[in-house]
Amino acid sequence: MITLGIDPGTARLGYGVVDSAGEARALAYGVVESRRGVPMAERLVVLFEGVQALIAEHRPESLAVEQLFFARNVTNALSVGQARGVVLLAGARAGLTIAEYTPAEVKQAVTGYGKADKPQMQEMVRLILRLDRVPTPDDAADALAVALCHAQTAPFRELVGG
Amino acid sequence: MITLGIDPGTARLGYGVVDSAGEARALAYGVVESRRGVPMAERLVVLFEGVQALIAEHRPESLAVEQLFFARNVTNALSVGQARGVVLLAGARAGLTIAEYTPAEVKQAVTGYGKADKPQMQEMVRLILRLDRVPTPDDAADALAVALCHAQTAPFRELVGG
Repeated sequence: MITLGIDPGTARLGYGVVDSAGEARALAYGVVESRRGVPMAERLVVLFEGVQALIAEHRPESLAVEQLFFARNVTNALSVGQARGVVLLAGARAGLTIAEYTPAEVKQAVTGYGKADKPQMQEMVRLILRLDRVPTPDDAADALAVALCHAQTAPFRELVGG
Repeated sequence: MITLGIDPGTARLGYGVVDSAGEARALAYGVVESRRGVPMAERLVVLFEGVQALIAEHRPESLAVEQLFFARNVTNALSVGQARGVVLLAGARAGLTIAEYTPAEVKQAVTGYGKADKPQMQEMVRLILRLDRVPTPDDAADALAVALCHAQTAPFRELVGG
């Protein structure tokens, strides 16, 4: 099962593609960047087309995104929401299963501890995917983490019909 | 000049199409509704395709949206941001000029008073567009108001190169 994990943001959007058919491995990770100073609508086009390109290249079954309940402030929440909107749209239009996880669910799935800190998370992502070093930037590591969370919990969710 | 005004929301998205070639008139107004209980990503597809259909039908040059700086709370801001993201995306991908206006700018343009209340705004929208009654629901009236704001200020903006 191939999962595309996304950490949405309007300046940069982190992505991580995880294949969990056998032992989990990272097929790709990185960021889609949209230039600052460019009007928001054009930045959203860059993000949308970036996600579409990732879906076309890796053909994931699922899109996993973190569910946010907080943000630095309302302006930031509106901005993240806009990026998130075009990501969910790209996934739904491609017929992907869309899964959202709270930050605690991601931490729990990846580290076994719902209150793990960022360095612990990133080190576990590195270990699980047998990478030589911690994936950077943070946005890419976070995207891999939410993809891993889905890869680990989706089979169970299906089993219990959740 | 035809302007599509949008008041974004995930449950319902207000729209108003204004032709300002001669005296301003409303070509259409209403709401695109997405059913509650349906997953967010699918609701965003409904909104995106609704805006695409409006653009295909009315062929506006511009898309006008209110610029928000506040919301009831962060969760609400994320939700409005998601709807707003797919609206801006639909406009940008169709090659429309995208214009954002603060609530005060909309009030100023429509009523001549930046602190007008909602009933005053709606009555002015009715008068300017020579409608028999105040357009409903509120989301549609708000969308017509932001379209009117753009229709009134865009020629001036172009003149001063703003």
